[in-house]
Amino acid sequence: MNQRTVFFISDQTGITAETLGRSLLTQFESVKFRQVTVPFIATVDKALEAVAQIDLVAKVEGVRPIVFSTLVHDELRNLLRGADCLFLDFIDAFVGPLEREIGVKSSHTSGKAHGMADSSGYTRRIDAMNFALANDDGASTAAYADADVILVGVSRSGKTPTCLYLALQFGVAPANYPLTGDELDGNRLPRALRQHRHKLFGLTIEPERLCEIRSERRPDSEYSSPQQVDYEVRAAEAIFRANGVPFVDTTRSSIEEIASTVLSELEIERLI
Amino acid sequence: MNQRTVFFISDQTGITAETLGRSLLTQFESVKFRQVTVPFIATVDKALEAVAQIDLVAKVEGVRPIVFSTLVHDELRNLLRGADCLFLDFIDAFVGPLEREIGVKSSHTSGKAHGMADSSGYTRRIDAMNFALANDDGASTAAYADADVILVGVSRSGKTPTCLYLALQFGVAPANYPLTGDELDGNRLPRALRQHRHKLFGLTIEPERLCEIRSERRPDSEYSSPQQVDYEVRAAEAIFRANGVPFVDTTRSSIEEIASTVLSELEIERLI
Repeated sequence: MNQRTVFFISDQTGITAETLGRSLLTQFESVKFRQVTVPFIATVDKALEAVAQIDLVAKVEGVRPIVFSTLVHDELRNLLRGADCLFLDFIDAFVGPLEREIGVKSSHTSGKAHGMADSSGYTRRIDAMNFALANDDGASTAAYADADVILVGVSRSGKTPTCLYLALQFGVAPANYPLTGDELDGNRLPRALRQHRHKLFGLTIEPERLCEIRSERRPDSEYSSPQQVDYEVRAAEAIFRANGVPFVDTTRSSIEEIASTVLSELEIERLI
Repeated sequence: MNQRTVFFISDQTGITAETLGRSLLTQFESVKFRQVTVPFIATVDKALEAVAQIDLVAKVEGVRPIVFSTLVHDELRNLLRGADCLFLDFIDAFVGPLEREIGVKSSHTSGKAHGMADSSGYTRRIDAMNFALANDDGASTAAYADADVILVGVSRSGKTPTCLYLALQFGVAPANYPLTGDELDGNRLPRALRQHRHKLFGLTIEPERLCEIRSERRPDSEYSSPQQVDYEVRAAEAIFRANGVPFVDTTRSSIEEIASTVLSELEIERLI
């Protein structure tokens, strides 16, 4: 199998370079990529170290590495550009066209995409995370009036990870409510949810997959038995349908996909 | 103030397009950007709707919007390219050079960067998140042998949000341990931490900022008093120094920056 080494080089956290680079690499499924992140390249010395590291890999592997860069300072970028690599420059490709379009020169300050530059947005994300933790798994329903969204579903259908992702990535305040026991019977929404119908979003999952997930937690229990799981999933879906609660199957979806779907369908704005 | 509308257009979640666009927009601090994410543009009909939306904004605002696109399919991209906008095409800019370098044609499948294509990596992130929740705030120390990193610090120094970010973004299994009460005296590491010294990372924070944060939680309490906060922060830093625990000041750092610093200094590999 074709294998290549990839570097993500950044003057800050490297998260933008990783996100963009990995997105592109998914287009080349037949190639195996060894991925190395080199963050905090903010001085000439650090840049020269990175160049040496890249050149060494090129020499040892006999093929030049691929470098994804979000370096902002021209001096550092030009140093890296001199390494033995394919240099893919996210800043250079788009800053020029943006400057011409907007009619303003870019500030050339080092990456603030994952810093606290936008402190109100940042505070909102941290507050949302605290909200998610305080309102996880039906722990409290008193604050539902302040929730942006309330995820509903049976145990282990993906509610908690999706809530934390909604909070940390999008600054949306999420709660989640588990459907269990008596509340699964009779196609009725639990009392605590009835007055928040417009905020509800259901998660469902294929019974076979849920059996696997629950078995890891409590093997050979009623909780993880096919009969119980099948009953719970059917009953939860019946409640969603009977009460007009939109829902999504999480079996083959990531938390990013589930979170994006929830926001899109409920028309909730993402953090700006 | 100069204001422009920006669209992030994607056939999937839109997270890559947002990451790219926002990173670039931080370079233009004097301009106010109204940001609109349009995810799941996977059909011609949806693409035509997006074109109409962009054209309408161009007409109403009298200036064409800026569009960041991660659309993969040529047909959809070409439709969007026809809208009245500055079209910045992430795929077009980088897939060509990558194809030539690797000698392989890209798969042209729609974005899987935030899907479950890499299911082992995805499972690792969800497992890490469950680990973070089970090992938050010193709740349990029995699993510390399985932790990749243990964050240590006084109450509200940023441990929980950083742990959740480490788990969800990097698939690293994090625990965190609060320094309180008697354990702050005497410059000694708490017993539960002593055998895990190489995994420890300290968080500190300026006392003034910590007072503010704690006052939001419990105003006019000893917990949030300047004397108590000052004592705790000094004592925690003394423990870090006396025991060779690396630490970082979180006062002006985002969780992305703190998490990246922790991984970088402890030389922990990020999820691949």
